[in-house]
Amino acid sequence: MSDINDVLARIDGNLDASLKRLSEFLAIPSISTDSAFKAECRRAAQWAADELSAIGFEARVADTQGHPMVVAHRKPKGATRHVLFYGHYDVQPPDPLDLWTTPPFEARLQDGPRGKQIVARGSSDDKGQLLTFIEAARAFIETEGELPVAVTVLLEGEEESGSPSLKPFFDANKDELKADLALVCDTGMWDATTPAVTTRLRGLVGEEITVTTAGRDLHSGMYGGPALNPIKVLANLIATLHDTDGRVAVPGFYDGVEELPDAIATQWRGLGFDEKGFLGEAGLSVASGEQNRSVLEKIWARPTCEINGVFGGYTGEGFKTVIPAGASAKISFRLVGKQDPLKIRNAFRTYLTEKLPAGAKIAFHDHGASAALELSADSPALALAARGLQDEWDKEPLLMGSGGSIPIVGAFKRELGMDTLLIGFALDDDRIHSPNEKYELSSFHKGTRSWARILARLAEWR
Amino acid sequence: MSDINDVLARIDGNLDASLKRLSEFLAIPSISTDSAFKAECRRAAQWAADELSAIGFEARVADTQGHPMVVAHRKPKGATRHVLFYGHYDVQPPDPLDLWTTPPFEARLQDGPRGKQIVARGSSDDKGQLLTFIEAARAFIETEGELPVAVTVLLEGEEESGSPSLKPFFDANKDELKADLALVCDTGMWDATTPAVTTRLRGLVGEEITVTTAGRDLHSGMYGGPALNPIKVLANLIATLHDTDGRVAVPGFYDGVEELPDAIATQWRGLGFDEKGFLGEAGLSVASGEQNRSVLEKIWARPTCEINGVFGGYTGEGFKTVIPAGASAKISFRLVGKQDPLKIRNAFRTYLTEKLPAGAKIAFHDHGASAALELSADSPALALAARGLQDEWDKEPLLMGSGGSIPIVGAFKRELGMDTLLIGFALDDDRIHSPNEKYELSSFHKGTRSWARILARLAEWR
Repeated sequence: MSDINDVLARIDGNLDASLKRLSEFLAIPSISTDSAFKAECRRAAQWAADELSAIGFEARVADTQGHPMVVAHRKPKGATRHVLFYGHYDVQPPDPLDLWTTPPFEARLQDGPRGKQIVARGSSDDKGQLLTFIEAARAFIETEGELPVAVTVLLEGEEESGSPSLKPFFDANKDELKADLALVCDTGMWDATTPAVTTRLRGLVGEEITVTTAGRDLHSGMYGGPALNPIKVLANLIATLHDTDGRVAVPGFYDGVEELPDAIATQWRGLGFDEKGFLGEAGLSVASGEQNRSVLEKIWARPTCEINGVFGGYTGEGFKTVIPAGASAKISFRLVGKQDPLKIRNAFRTYLTEKLPAGAKIAFHDHGASAALELSADSPALALAARGLQDEWDKEPLLMGSGGSIPIVGAFKRELGMDTLLIGFALDDDRIHSPNEKYELSSFHKGTRSWARILARLAEWR
Repeated sequence: MSDINDVLARIDGNLDASLKRLSEFLAIPSISTDSAFKAECRRAAQWAADELSAIGFEARVADTQGHPMVVAHRKPKGATRHVLFYGHYDVQPPDPLDLWTTPPFEARLQDGPRGKQIVARGSSDDKGQLLTFIEAARAFIETEGELPVAVTVLLEGEEESGSPSLKPFFDANKDELKADLALVCDTGMWDATTPAVTTRLRGLVGEEITVTTAGRDLHSGMYGGPALNPIKVLANLIATLHDTDGRVAVPGFYDGVEELPDAIATQWRGLGFDEKGFLGEAGLSVASGEQNRSVLEKIWARPTCEINGVFGGYTGEGFKTVIPAGASAKISFRLVGKQDPLKIRNAFRTYLTEKLPAGAKIAFHDHGASAALELSADSPALALAARGLQDEWDKEPLLMGSGGSIPIVGAFKRELGMDTLLIGFALDDDRIHSPNEKYELSSFHKGTRSWARILARLAEWR
């Protein structure tokens, strides 16, 4: 087994050179959403492929219908495990430019409240983060001559524009990309001193419903009384979606939802999460939803039903005494655990259809469905990565949830049958997508060291 | 007492001349909503004033900020009663022009399923209708030398554009305009052989409510669970506005609502109103609202609460997983009998505020309020007018309701303290505001005869 201390020492000694490489990478304005920067995207891809080649990966820039992918492999003889590392080289546009205190594509090392920060577009999302992995690989190869596990690196250039080329690329390169596990470095730590693995991502079912009662909009003077009002019907239906305890009332909705394991529950309770502060920042005065569950549990581990939009009748300035022909709502469910998106869609549709009063019709429109993703707490790879993080940060990593979804993780599961370890070193105040985006120097440095430790640990995975 | 038969014979003998005058009036394109026709509006006013002068009224064209009013008086010595007749000389634009089978401002006498029809813009709304009254007055004066009651004629030129000058004109001319009763000829018959007096107009309270729960729109991944969803809160509030029997659940809402007098209920039941046909034309498959009440009763004599508009969150194409900061609804109440609009507004606001969950705020915006107007079935003027109508049509006139409001009637009550008799001879299929507007020749002829009989009867009013 390799001596991890040599690798870590190499990382420490290389830090200035690593930062120089990061600065070069950040200087390329690889804005994927703006076609004016198409060549810059390719330049960023080429830069990353060249770096990977330089440390001994078999690397290529692979064309797609949009911006290219970078694919690189290094598969040591005798390695028992193979991981796929994913990151993205594209960045958000820097606008509004005048809010930047330094030019967005000239990385600066500045003093911040927690020490030095690297300020530039993409420093945290995702160039800085993805380089932590590549620099860790570099240190391993330069120190030990080889990686402890087989590694494929996949870098995308369309993450900020919806990843349209991902599925076709997966379809065309399944065998090349398939590994034992995916590693994604696009998430954050719990706080500046507490590492985290995001092990839970909620799923999503989107539905649009339209209630119709009349053949045309009616005048409420002429028809008010006998005419069934579709907004009223819609409101009644929405009102039945939750019970008085804040639980979703659709039959069977909680099938597949498991209670939080005691260990996780204890860990989350121990965080001292400032619920009031979190809600207050959003202008919320109380915690709503299910009774007797913490805010973190509600967001990370409980399913929801939300009304995301509603519209019907006259919605302009002033007033019109109309009874509209119809009214609509956009409704979504966040899913957890083993909830089945399609069963829930069907149960929802049946539930509302049965509650529909005489004289009303309802139409449903499908706005997509994806299941929740959850890495089992028993996963050996998770346990090994967690030990690597604990070694570096001297603190047990938090097994977090994410209330939203991270599409790439679903794609890895669906298209390539791989679980994903979501480990990143971003902080909540990194201002990703905003002016003056930064990445803590400690995130970059200790993040690189963390990946070295994790790679070493993953070699123990049997 | 005058001999009504002489007057009626004069009307019959004058019919061709009356129609010629109507054609002249209809030839003036007095479109009040289009400033290009400003001079034509004045010309129509002048035409009417000249006609009234010609039969011995003291008539003038009175300037306003907008189109002028026509005011004319004829007050016989010894007349015990004084009525104000209201009509409007302005018309709707004729668009779309290409759907007219004859030019809109060239009146044609055409054959229709019930006999001759006068086809032109304004034939029914309201030039033809208002001339029925003036031609009746002419016949009286030409036959008997005098009118049986004192008459003031007020013709407006802004009825189709919201009557902005009416209130200032009333304020400035209260004493001149005040009479014992107003007569308005801008409504219809029940059917081609059944005359009607519209004695009930529903009132209206308009409210806009906005429910707010957060300081900004939130991402449903980040906040879904603990965040109180304002659309959900709004739907719950709307759902509480009616009970399961279709009655409005706001406390005190039915204060001042009286059950239909037996005589009226019997009359309405006897109409054989085709509920299914009425609803079906609007695409409604069932009658909704309060239990055990007929459609006519619901529209003419029962109050309602309608949701006229609702909006919140994402309402565009596709889907956004947003929890909006707020959501709004436009809500109106139709009132009947002695319901107090301001009490109802307050009760509504209190009711919703009390039902608001912790963490939600509600704001109310006032969109106007007017009480219902109801002419008592005991009104002597109503009884006399009804006898006049029965004499002409050989059928008991129907005492109808109108589900909507007719603002002039409220203005007469509020500004001048006068009740109004709404009597008109339009039919549902007159296509007012649409291409090929028509007025039945029988409406015009027997309408003129009806007014002569009504004026004669009103002379008996003590």
